[in-house]
Amino acid sequence: MNNQKKYLIKFIPSGKSIKVSKGYNLKQAILDSGIYIDSSCGGVGTCGRCKVCVKEGKVNTKKSKFISLKEKENGYVLSCLSRVESDLIVEVPEQKKVKAKIVDGRFADSEFKTYAGVSNDELSSVEIKPWIKKETIVVEKPSLSYGTSDLFRLKKSIRHNLNLEDCVVPIHIIRKLPIVLREKNWEVAVTIDRENSTLIDIKPGSASGKSYGLALDIGTTSLVMYLVNLEDGKIINSESEYNPQIKFGEDIISRIVYSNKKGGLEKLREVIIDSINNLIWRLLLNSHIDADSIVSMMVSGNSTMMHLFYGVPPRYIREEPYVTVANKFSSSTAKEVGIKHIKNAYVYNIQGVASYLGGDITSGILATGMYRKEELALFLDLGTNGELVVGNSEWMMGVSCSAGPAFEGGGVKCGIRAVDGAIEKISINQKTYRCQIGVIGGGKPRGICGSGMIDVIGEMYLKGVVDRKGKFNKDIGNKYLKCMNNDCQYILVDSKESATGEDIYISEVDIDNLIRAKAAIYAGIKTLLEEVDLSVYDLEKIYIAGGLGKYLNIKNAVIIGMLPDIDTSKYFFLGNTSITGAYLSLLSEDRYKQSTKIAEHITYIELSVNMKFMDRYVAGLFLPYTDMKDFPTVEESLYSIDGKLKK
Amino acid sequence: MNNQKKYLIKFIPSGKSIKVSKGYNLKQAILDSGIYIDSSCGGVGTCGRCKVCVKEGKVNTKKSKFISLKEKENGYVLSCLSRVESDLIVEVPEQKKVKAKIVDGRFADSEFKTYAGVSNDELSSVEIKPWIKKETIVVEKPSLSYGTSDLFRLKKSIRHNLNLEDCVVPIHIIRKLPIVLREKNWEVAVTIDRENSTLIDIKPGSASGKSYGLALDIGTTSLVMYLVNLEDGKIINSESEYNPQIKFGEDIISRIVYSNKKGGLEKLREVIIDSINNLIWRLLLNSHIDADSIVSMMVSGNSTMMHLFYGVPPRYIREEPYVTVANKFSSSTAKEVGIKHIKNAYVYNIQGVASYLGGDITSGILATGMYRKEELALFLDLGTNGELVVGNSEWMMGVSCSAGPAFEGGGVKCGIRAVDGAIEKISINQKTYRCQIGVIGGGKPRGICGSGMIDVIGEMYLKGVVDRKGKFNKDIGNKYLKCMNNDCQYILVDSKESATGEDIYISEVDIDNLIRAKAAIYAGIKTLLEEVDLSVYDLEKIYIAGGLGKYLNIKNAVIIGMLPDIDTSKYFFLGNTSITGAYLSLLSEDRYKQSTKIAEHITYIELSVNMKFMDRYVAGLFLPYTDMKDFPTVEESLYSIDGKLKK
Repeated sequence: MNNQKKYLIKFIPSGKSIKVSKGYNLKQAILDSGIYIDSSCGGVGTCGRCKVCVKEGKVNTKKSKFISLKEKENGYVLSCLSRVESDLIVEVPEQKKVKAKIVDGRFADSEFKTYAGVSNDELSSVEIKPWIKKETIVVEKPSLSYGTSDLFRLKKSIRHNLNLEDCVVPIHIIRKLPIVLREKNWEVAVTIDRENSTLIDIKPGSASGKSYGLALDIGTTSLVMYLVNLEDGKIINSESEYNPQIKFGEDIISRIVYSNKKGGLEKLREVIIDSINNLIWRLLLNSHIDADSIVSMMVSGNSTMMHLFYGVPPRYIREEPYVTVANKFSSSTAKEVGIKHIKNAYVYNIQGVASYLGGDITSGILATGMYRKEELALFLDLGTNGELVVGNSEWMMGVSCSAGPAFEGGGVKCGIRAVDGAIEKISINQKTYRCQIGVIGGGKPRGICGSGMIDVIGEMYLKGVVDRKGKFNKDIGNKYLKCMNNDCQYILVDSKESATGEDIYISEVDIDNLIRAKAAIYAGIKTLLEEVDLSVYDLEKIYIAGGLGKYLNIKNAVIIGMLPDIDTSKYFFLGNTSITGAYLSLLSEDRYKQSTKIAEHITYIELSVNMKFMDRYVAGLFLPYTDMKDFPTVEESLYSIDGKLKK
Repeated sequence: MNNQKKYLIKFIPSGKSIKVSKGYNLKQAILDSGIYIDSSCGGVGTCGRCKVCVKEGKVNTKKSKFISLKEKENGYVLSCLSRVESDLIVEVPEQKKVKAKIVDGRFADSEFKTYAGVSNDELSSVEIKPWIKKETIVVEKPSLSYGTSDLFRLKKSIRHNLNLEDCVVPIHIIRKLPIVLREKNWEVAVTIDRENSTLIDIKPGSASGKSYGLALDIGTTSLVMYLVNLEDGKIINSESEYNPQIKFGEDIISRIVYSNKKGGLEKLREVIIDSINNLIWRLLLNSHIDADSIVSMMVSGNSTMMHLFYGVPPRYIREEPYVTVANKFSSSTAKEVGIKHIKNAYVYNIQGVASYLGGDITSGILATGMYRKEELALFLDLGTNGELVVGNSEWMMGVSCSAGPAFEGGGVKCGIRAVDGAIEKISINQKTYRCQIGVIGGGKPRGICGSGMIDVIGEMYLKGVVDRKGKFNKDIGNKYLKCMNNDCQYILVDSKESATGEDIYISEVDIDNLIRAKAAIYAGIKTLLEEVDLSVYDLEKIYIAGGLGKYLNIKNAVIIGMLPDIDTSKYFFLGNTSITGAYLSLLSEDRYKQSTKIAEHITYIELSVNMKFMDRYVAGLFLPYTDMKDFPTVEESLYSIDGKLKK
């Protein structure tokens, strides 16, 4: 056999194709051809999410519990377990494809207050005074009686006009200085980085053009970038994109593992920088702004994302004792970190606290304003990791608890991210057990996202579909419950009504994953508060950030025992606070300095070795909690429905 | 005719060759092939110094007064006026070739005190404490209870051990930080730039290897580099080379003119950087020192040289009001300025005062130590430009006066630089008028250098060969004086005794050039002193630096009226003080800071518009001076020789 023979694989419906050698891994071929395919297990056949349909040709595939007999007959395989044996036509199912534009700007449509990332009084309290901005100065002309150097006279003018004692002027700027100074009769527009007292840029004439900055959030799942007018603080435009590192691993841990491979770190850095360059390019194209007028970029992200962005090995983040290389990186030119288009702009980053409490959380605290208020507040960022900070202007304390991928659609058979087609809301008819659903984007459903999952579990528990342990009650006459041996599935959407043509259901394994996730969050909250001898009733405000927060039904989150059972008017949704913190820091010298103070101010508690946390976690493996006393309104609801407490 | 035909030119004795098109300029072909050829006029046929001998083949050449009939018969042409017409064999005369190693380390062998660049008490007063050096520190290990970032713990250790509050750690260092810290159990050797509080380098283990630095003087004519051990201050090795920019122009002005041409600046920068890289390479090869142990480079040079080194347009240095772009350039990595081999080393430069009073002069003042003494001293750097600084620890004032190229062998028919074969000393027999000569290197003479020129003029005047105006006395029976029409030549060395096979002589035009040069120097000294109501008799010390100083006979310099007629024990020769100042600044943080203070301390006086200077200059166009009262010992000598004052 000739292993060098190349086979042509055509992918539908994308129309893309690729040539690969015999025996090549099919999932890799899909990724190589630029098509995104979901796979939270990293390609070892345990998550079942890289399912594709081989329409023509032959593959050598392994058995999988995720492929039903009927599916097998129709050509379905797990691409990660399949090897190419001939030319192929492969359908990569529509619902697994990444949409370029992330659904954004929608927030919980519940009765709770909603904010677009930052509260109005927080925004209005910000004085727009970026520390990088173009400014016009006039430099004194030389004469025979005043024959000092161009540089000396420039520095003198900066000192007098911009109140900066000693400004560093790098060689590459000195090189063009004589020409620039003389071009418009000694009037120049200067851009100064006040963090390093360095002249970044100088142009002939007045700073008539506006100054712009970029705020960037590097999330594990997605990137969001704002183009901001630094004169008035307005967001001109925004762009977002999935984090392209997803193809090397869905979560932080799998990316760190990948970064340890030969060339892995550089590859991860390359793809993220490419994406950022792409975002910048799109913003520039759409806004018709001169690239040179962008003077700064403020980056926020979790510790691993920041390490990968700067090309720093994140390896020790996942090895005990779990330390970062740096929680804050030196400011640098865009060019130094590989950013194109805006080469001379300066890049700053928001300081993080610890390996699992990064700059994204500092940004969040900045966005809430809780760091400067007396009231006791809790900040929650809910995603794969749940990051929690409690405190006020006097003190702050934070933890990180691994919630697993359940909230982002992982570890759940019909789970998908909060994109168009995801079931975000569910209510169950008490009599028929039929589900009524709300779908993001309004079309036919393709799966269920984190908030939908919380809804369905809350509803199932409230309506008696499951017991306190999350096991199905099989004796209530629920005709949507299908069992085979001991394996039961509760059908949320019938195959005829779904976009995929298959049932959308939830299994006990799915429920179990969700319960473990919510138990971790609540255990984190309890442990944190108990560290300072406080209880959930002392909290005056709870800020919820992160992707999950956007669609979350607080009442259901309380019912399942994930969030504290306190007055729901104390809950506030803030959406993506990482980008908000970056945005505020870009606008305001004061806020940027605050972000550093916040990061230094937060005491981090490592939960992985905390026995109290373990106790609370185990206690949380019930709905809503082992001790019902923690959830009085849930107890009440259960009584109010049918007059007796469900077990 | 086919202009595209290439002709082969072989050069002897170098053995080099080149192919050029028909009609190509012969001098350019010589330069292109990497052979140095002297030409102070820049290639327009007016200096006669690019004479070569066409041994085989045909050139199209123009007539020149510099080619005698006999020479023409033998194939001699001015290469700048010749075009290639066939394959050629061309002899580029030996005496015009650059020697790789500049004669150095020799100083005036007169009765005056001599120093190797710096006085012993000045050297012994320097505390060896460079601000860039490798140092060993141990960083605290992280633990679950102390889980701060690697960077935080590193900074803490730097703060405690090296007493540096906030050290900037650039991204490229952070990238390797986790590996380096863990490699030798948290012991690392760090190199810190204290000027910018920046960590330059970090290596695993202790700083067992020594730290080294480079001192570099970029002269208009030559480059000198020292490799210095920063632990004990010893000079390990030194290298020197002609400044390769010479091929684009001999002096500062012609280089500035060249830099204004398209691509000229970049070309000038490239060749100098190439040469510096070459010097570094040679130093590394000969010393067996690891390139990484070189942590810094201190550069000294005149303002134009510094502009060209940093790639900054020097154009406005020669346009009124004669300003530099910068007198001091920001420190940078070697890489940023194009230096290879020692990429991570930091490059510093000695601050200059003005366009024509550069960092080389600041270095000189540093080397003399006059900036910290009460005694009134005069510093003279004698080359194409004469730079003068007078003052003490209280005040300093400086001027620059253009002396022309005479002191460096230019503008004088038989003039050459102070290299092997140059006549450096001359005495004339009072009766026979025969010259007795001293030759650098001891062989047959090939020409006369600046100090020889001063000697011969002083001797000629003293022995009556010329009158006070520098015109030959034709009625004294001088058989070495050959006249044709009104054009006279005084034969110093007969063709039989010279290395070139031709007479070495001096003409009235040569004498005239020398008189104008010495007049400028003395006028500078007078003007400077009169500005502060002082006279030459107030001077307690006169320091002489620069190439000319090395071989200068002070008595003859006084006789011709170039230097003040004061007690010769007040004169001190210091040689190349530019490299000495760079060396001191490399060794000592204190001296480097002093250099900046010195540069800011010196008041620069522009002579080009100073009427008093003009008056003194015109008065100096006599030997020794219009008013003989300024030179009492000269007057005395003239009487003592034959009892009457020569007119």
